[in-house]
Amino acid sequence: MTQNKKIILKTFPKGYPKEEDFETQTEEIDLTLEDGEVLLKLKYVSVDPYLRYRMKSSDNKAFKGYKLNGPMNSICIAVVEDSKNESFKKGDHVSSWQLDWQTYSKVKNVQGLQKIPEVDLPISYFLHSVGMTGMTAYFGLLDLGKPKEGETVLVSAAAGAVGMLVGQFAKIKGCKALGIAGGPEKVKFVKSLGFDDCLDYKDVKNMDEAIKKFTPNGIDVYFDNVGSDTLDAVLLNINKGARLPLCGSISNYNDTEESQGPRRLFNLISKSAKMEGFMVGDFAQDFGKAQKEIIGWLKEGKVKEHIDERQGFDKIVSSFIDLFHGRNTGKVVIKVSE
Amino acid sequence: MTQNKKIILKTFPKGYPKEEDFETQTEEIDLTLEDGEVLLKLKYVSVDPYLRYRMKSSDNKAFKGYKLNGPMNSICIAVVEDSKNESFKKGDHVSSWQLDWQTYSKVKNVQGLQKIPEVDLPISYFLHSVGMTGMTAYFGLLDLGKPKEGETVLVSAAAGAVGMLVGQFAKIKGCKALGIAGGPEKVKFVKSLGFDDCLDYKDVKNMDEAIKKFTPNGIDVYFDNVGSDTLDAVLLNINKGARLPLCGSISNYNDTEESQGPRRLFNLISKSAKMEGFMVGDFAQDFGKAQKEIIGWLKEGKVKEHIDERQGFDKIVSSFIDLFHGRNTGKVVIKVSE
Repeated sequence: MTQNKKIILKTFPKGYPKEEDFETQTEEIDLTLEDGEVLLKLKYVSVDPYLRYRMKSSDNKAFKGYKLNGPMNSICIAVVEDSKNESFKKGDHVSSWQLDWQTYSKVKNVQGLQKIPEVDLPISYFLHSVGMTGMTAYFGLLDLGKPKEGETVLVSAAAGAVGMLVGQFAKIKGCKALGIAGGPEKVKFVKSLGFDDCLDYKDVKNMDEAIKKFTPNGIDVYFDNVGSDTLDAVLLNINKGARLPLCGSISNYNDTEESQGPRRLFNLISKSAKMEGFMVGDFAQDFGKAQKEIIGWLKEGKVKEHIDERQGFDKIVSSFIDLFHGRNTGKVVIKVSE
Repeated sequence: MTQNKKIILKTFPKGYPKEEDFETQTEEIDLTLEDGEVLLKLKYVSVDPYLRYRMKSSDNKAFKGYKLNGPMNSICIAVVEDSKNESFKKGDHVSSWQLDWQTYSKVKNVQGLQKIPEVDLPISYFLHSVGMTGMTAYFGLLDLGKPKEGETVLVSAAAGAVGMLVGQFAKIKGCKALGIAGGPEKVKFVKSLGFDDCLDYKDVKNMDEAIKKFTPNGIDVYFDNVGSDTLDAVLLNINKGARLPLCGSISNYNDTEESQGPRRLFNLISKSAKMEGFMVGDFAQDFGKAQKEIIGWLKEGKVKEHIDERQGFDKIVSSFIDLFHGRNTGKVVIKVSE
C-alpha cells in the first residue's frame, strides 16, 4: 500500500474561494493495475478561473460541476509510473483535461490522455501556450475575432494566461494590440510582450472615459476575459462590425447574486457588432494544426512564454485562489513532483 | 401660399412618450419648385419603435437623433404633386427613409427617394413586408439567424411588425416557429399566421420557467425585439451554437436609467452561441433580391400581410405612442391623405 494525497471540495464557495472550502486527505491505496489501466503520478497542475464556475452548484449545466466531497480536478500533466496498456509506457508524459488533484491516479479510460510530443520545449508549455490556454487564445482570437491587419484588438486580463497570448497573436496578425491589466507590474509585463500599450484599470476612475481615451481609433476586436463594467465601457467604443469573442467573465465568477449584465448591448445593434461565446473544445479537430503553428512562433521568438510556476502539492489551492485576487502573472502552473 | 401642417418634437420624452412631447404646427408655404426639386404630398406614415431611440437626446450616436423643435420624420410614402426633376413625374408614389411629418415636402436631394414599383400589391405593403420592416425580418433571420430546417426559431414581439414576418419566414425555411406576444388577441393573431405556437407573456409568472416549458427542444435562433427579462430567460434555454440576432430592445427604449443588462451572458460561452446586432441598411445592396422573393411569397399566399392602418394626420403621434403600450397588431401605418 502507498500513501496518496488528494484534494476534495469541502463546500461550494460563497463569493471568493477560501482555503477552508477544500480539504487535503491522505489515504492508503494499492497501486496494482488491472489490464488496460495506466498508473499516473501527478507532475504539473494547471489552475484556471473557469474552475470556479464549476463550483457554482451541483445543478450547473454549463460545465461538468464538481461534487461536494468529490475530488478536485483540472488540466494536468502526469508521468506514467506503470502501465498495463500498450499505448502507454513508463516514463511517458501525458496531459489530461480532467485529472484529479491527487498524487496517483489509476486511469482505465485512457481516451482522455494525450501524450506530450517530443519537442524541444519545457513540458509546462503544454499547460499554456501549446495547451488548452493557447488553443483558447488562438481560436477565440483568430476564428471568432477574425482580426484584420491594421485593426485594433483589445484584450482584458492581458497579463493573464489567455490575455498575454491573445495580444501576441494579434501582433503577429499585424494588428494594434492593446491590453488592460491591474497594476504597474502587470502593465510592464504586458508591454514587455510586445503589446502596443496597456491600460492599468486600477488607476482608472471612470472606465468609460479611460477606454475612450485609450482606444482613439475605436475597437475592432475585444477579447473579453472579464465581463462587467469593462465590457460596458468597451461597448461604447466599438467600431462598426466589431467582433467580441467572449472567453470568460472572471469578474462575475464569485458573485453571490446574479450578475448585473452589460447595459449597452444596444450598441451591438447600432454598430452591427457581434458578441460570441465559445468553448475551446469546439475546435478540437484543429488543435494539432494550431499547436504546430504556435510551436513555430515560440521557436522563432515571435511569442514569448511566461509560466508563473509554483512548487509543491500544498500550493495548488492557494494558487487557484490567487487567480481571483490578481496574484498571478501569466500562466499559473504548480509543479507537484519531479 | 398653401397651408402646411407639420409635427415637431417639443421635448425629449422622459420615459414613455406623451402627446405633449410633440406639437402640430400649421404654416403657410410656397409650393413653387426650383430646378431639380420635387414636391411631395405625404400619404402613408410608418411609425416604428426605434424612433423612440432617436429621441434619447441630441448626443445620440447610434441613430441620427431628432432635434428639439425640429421636425419629426420617419419612413413614409408620398405622392409626387409636382416635379422639376426629370426622374420623377406627378402621380409617382415614392418612399423615403426620412421624410418629415408634414403635408408637403420640397425635396432637392432626391437620392433618398425610391419609386414604388408597379406591382399588384397595396402600396402600404412597401412600409411593411416589402419595405424596411420586411428587410429587417428577412436579413436578420436569414443572414444572421441562419435557420436550418427542423430548428426552433423563437421571436419576441411576434404580433409586431417585424416579429409577425420573422415567424412566417422561419416556417418557409422549414423551422418550428414560436412566438411571444402579449394578450390572448395577439396570441390568436400570431397563430393565425401559421406560427406553431405563441406564448402569452402577460399570462406568465416566472419567465424562466415559462420559456423552458415553451421550448422543450431548446432554442436555435432567437430573434430579439425586446431585450430585458425575456432575453435572460432565453439565454437559459439556448441550444449549442444558437444564433441571437438583436433587432431591437423595445422594453428598454423608455428607460429613464441605463437598463439592467442580460445577466446570463455566460451561457453564450457555455453554448458557443452568438449574439449579433445589425442595422438593416447593412444589407441595402441585396434589398432588391429580398423584395422580389417576399413579393413572390405574398402572391403565393406563403406570407400573410397585416397592416394596422389608422386614418388621419392627427393619428400619427397617438399611433406612435400606442407602440409602447402594445396597442397595435402587425404593422402600424397612418394614412394621412388619399
